[in-house]
Amino acid sequence: MAPAPFPVPRSVSDDPLSASGVPGRADLDPRTFRAAAHRVADLMADYLEGVEDYPVFPAIEPGSIRPLFPATAPEAPAAIAKILADYQALVVPNATHWQHPGFLAYFGTTASGPGILGEMLTATLGQNPMLWRTSPIGTELEGVVVDWLRQGLGLPPTFDGLLTDTASTSTLIALAAAREAAGLDAAAEGLAGRPDLAAGVRVYASAEAHSSIEKACMTLGIGRASLRKIQVNERFELDPAALAAAIGEDRAAGRVPLAIVATIGTTSSTSVDPIAAIAAIAVAEGVWLHVDAAYAGPVALLPDRRASFQGWELADSIVVNPHKWLFTPLDASLLLTRRMELLQAAFSLQPEYLRTIDREAPVRDYSEYQPQLGRRFRALKLWILLRTFGLQGLRERIDHHLALAAEFADWIDADPDWERLAPVPFSTVCFRFRPAGAARHAADPAMDSRLDELNAGIMAAVNRSGEVFLSHTRLAGRFTIRLAVGNLRTEERHVARAWALLRREAGRLGAG
Amino acid sequence: MAPAPFPVPRSVSDDPLSASGVPGRADLDPRTFRAAAHRVADLMADYLEGVEDYPVFPAIEPGSIRPLFPATAPEAPAAIAKILADYQALVVPNATHWQHPGFLAYFGTTASGPGILGEMLTATLGQNPMLWRTSPIGTELEGVVVDWLRQGLGLPPTFDGLLTDTASTSTLIALAAAREAAGLDAAAEGLAGRPDLAAGVRVYASAEAHSSIEKACMTLGIGRASLRKIQVNERFELDPAALAAAIGEDRAAGRVPLAIVATIGTTSSTSVDPIAAIAAIAVAEGVWLHVDAAYAGPVALLPDRRASFQGWELADSIVVNPHKWLFTPLDASLLLTRRMELLQAAFSLQPEYLRTIDREAPVRDYSEYQPQLGRRFRALKLWILLRTFGLQGLRERIDHHLALAAEFADWIDADPDWERLAPVPFSTVCFRFRPAGAARHAADPAMDSRLDELNAGIMAAVNRSGEVFLSHTRLAGRFTIRLAVGNLRTEERHVARAWALLRREAGRLGAG
Repeated sequence: MAPAPFPVPRSVSDDPLSASGVPGRADLDPRTFRAAAHRVADLMADYLEGVEDYPVFPAIEPGSIRPLFPATAPEAPAAIAKILADYQALVVPNATHWQHPGFLAYFGTTASGPGILGEMLTATLGQNPMLWRTSPIGTELEGVVVDWLRQGLGLPPTFDGLLTDTASTSTLIALAAAREAAGLDAAAEGLAGRPDLAAGVRVYASAEAHSSIEKACMTLGIGRASLRKIQVNERFELDPAALAAAIGEDRAAGRVPLAIVATIGTTSSTSVDPIAAIAAIAVAEGVWLHVDAAYAGPVALLPDRRASFQGWELADSIVVNPHKWLFTPLDASLLLTRRMELLQAAFSLQPEYLRTIDREAPVRDYSEYQPQLGRRFRALKLWILLRTFGLQGLRERIDHHLALAAEFADWIDADPDWERLAPVPFSTVCFRFRPAGAARHAADPAMDSRLDELNAGIMAAVNRSGEVFLSHTRLAGRFTIRLAVGNLRTEERHVARAWALLRREAGRLGAG
Repeated sequence: MAPAPFPVPRSVSDDPLSASGVPGRADLDPRTFRAAAHRVADLMADYLEGVEDYPVFPAIEPGSIRPLFPATAPEAPAAIAKILADYQALVVPNATHWQHPGFLAYFGTTASGPGILGEMLTATLGQNPMLWRTSPIGTELEGVVVDWLRQGLGLPPTFDGLLTDTASTSTLIALAAAREAAGLDAAAEGLAGRPDLAAGVRVYASAEAHSSIEKACMTLGIGRASLRKIQVNERFELDPAALAAAIGEDRAAGRVPLAIVATIGTTSSTSVDPIAAIAAIAVAEGVWLHVDAAYAGPVALLPDRRASFQGWELADSIVVNPHKWLFTPLDASLLLTRRMELLQAAFSLQPEYLRTIDREAPVRDYSEYQPQLGRRFRALKLWILLRTFGLQGLRERIDHHLALAAEFADWIDADPDWERLAPVPFSTVCFRFRPAGAARHAADPAMDSRLDELNAGIMAAVNRSGEVFLSHTRLAGRFTIRLAVGNLRTEERHVARAWALLRREAGRLGAG
């Protein structure tokens, strides 16, 4: 099992990577490819080992990178060594370093070691599991991995599913299936010119739900205006009574309710909608329930943290993103559903050139369940990841992130000059600087406006340090700084450094 | 520039990959990752070097792979060496080997050396160019590469565009933009319950157009029934007079024409719709024209082969798939358009948590132009590919494939027992076995049915050999074998071997 030693070129002339161009009409010759793959393996390992040496976000302005590249397409081939040197000089320094342990913005995406190894093999095997026949392993391993994740998340075997590129696509698929569940026969008949839909259709989600739901409505011909945003309580959780009332009102007006989207871990504050209460409404109304747990889903791997997920087993569909908090490189989104046949009703087509002799067997062709025909072999990296860490190892890592966020929240709570602006159910803390003296003017809108400006300035200054990278949102109208732990490489020292930088910049800017 | 020598472990105990499990709460430690990346680099190089040793399609039945994997998710971590051994034993033998030079089915997807190196770096950098801020290099290099490809294809600078995952998505985006171009304000208002659409909407494509157009209509709420399939001539090309008549008829009935999809290189026969004539109709009618050149587009890199593309510069949008005939690993589809602002109208949303300070600059956030928010850094592999081969090298390779297909077509034409069932404008040959004696019964439907069965049997037998892999379609109702050249590793000997196998199996089966 020991790898063959990699030959070190003795001089440049002996180095196939320095040969200018690739002759002939074929691919790189095997010797050159092997040498290049090893060189790149070292670049990869070097990058991850030294990623903290880069500023998380580079100090550059929009439009400054494109002029570094020739405006005209290259006619002649270049040597691999030259291309890799340009990669190091032009590409790496102009990246936002999502792999930097100080990346605490948005929700992190970790390119973990096992995930990267998976992508290397995926790229090489070049599978396209659109049909069983075009990739038997891609198809059947997807079934294995989807079920392993289902088990880990504690969901019943009535859930089946598939891997898609992003939560945007998973949610779009869910809402397309919901159209079929509502009996619209939308895949066949469309939504235009239908007397049965004269009063319109409706999708429901909280005012804090992710923009992907709105986008799915735009794409599916439902329209942004048909997404009814339900009010939230002071914890940013959907109000079930308001949901029930909205559905009743819409039904009375002849509108057709298609789906309810509930969120476990909203993007702004990671709030948790009351899933059980919403599921009861969905069941009573006979409306599709889609649960967006794209970010927070992996927390369900921890049995003692499943309170937030109570009732999600009643959902018709659930999205959880391995490329968020499950340490999988982009892209990998898991869509689970109890109603696989309705996904098929929404997307199945069998032209002759895709018909295979396998049709006679009960074969799964995953392209029948999604808008795209072509598909990447995403199961491979998940299989490698799940085996490398084991569910046990994944639980430990997620638990660690929950602990880091709880510690940061404690620091905020203990400091009278800072305030937390939302509960912390998972690994994201929402907060702002509010000097103790300012508390007296809490009801003063001008004060809130000054605090908005001050906090925007603090965040920008912290980000300019290059040591950490934070993002923001608005909660109850207030500029809110977010610190989201989810990068596998983040340690306590990075969170502590963020806190030190925040206080330093607040001290500088808040003193004025 | 010489790489550091990779240390060869002296014993198993010295090999970090044999350590059972990954301790702690972090990623693989740097030493283990580096060793694993080198081991995988060798697996990759070994695979590509020996891919011809595998049968192109494995001799397995649906459902036979899943039982090889444990039904329950792994709790404990496993050693990398064990996982890679299982990969070799369980994954590789059950793949359809798209990289085998005998893969002549569907349209090929080559995981070329430069493309694979690009995927390795993409996975490691972990960029998400959804916003400029989340990946300045991912955003600006996409602009560079899209424009390089535009230049190479000979399209004017009025075309801008983006990289998507698949042609299915590119076409869906084009049709969503077409809805906006038609003034429907569909993103905002949807398609249901609108008096202005009481008589319905229409999309037009030929009867030979790809299923992705039908699927886009299903997804977008347009509906399968609203895709009007226009008849083709005996060369499987869309009939412009029939198109014009259909639009006139629909307008008279109050239906709203949204888009025309014309194809350069249909999936079954690679026929070429008369683009210039169709463009004239689109302009006269004020209807969006989308050109599907997903497969054949790269032929436009060759200036002396641009006759097939004449008029495509008048299209509103064009799709060309680098992951088909431009040697790029899945996924990479290029969507070019003269009307970028209408893509934005169809998909733009700016929630607060995605608003960045860069909004004040004229910054491009690519997620505003597509249904998904998250995006892979696809420009990197294309940049490496374009530089490694140069446009010149790409032209030579495509030209070589055109020549191989022409040669195979000549063999078919010269043999009285075989017949070609469609013209060969590019690299795909459609044909069947028809023993010379059978020609006398050409008008006999029973004979066609017997030939269908015979040819299906020949194709299955050839595929069982494992040396080559062919797919089929139906043309004018007849079972048609397709041989599609597009794999960078395919040489003349593979095409010759396919021909020998076809004749051998025809001899065996046709003698009965």
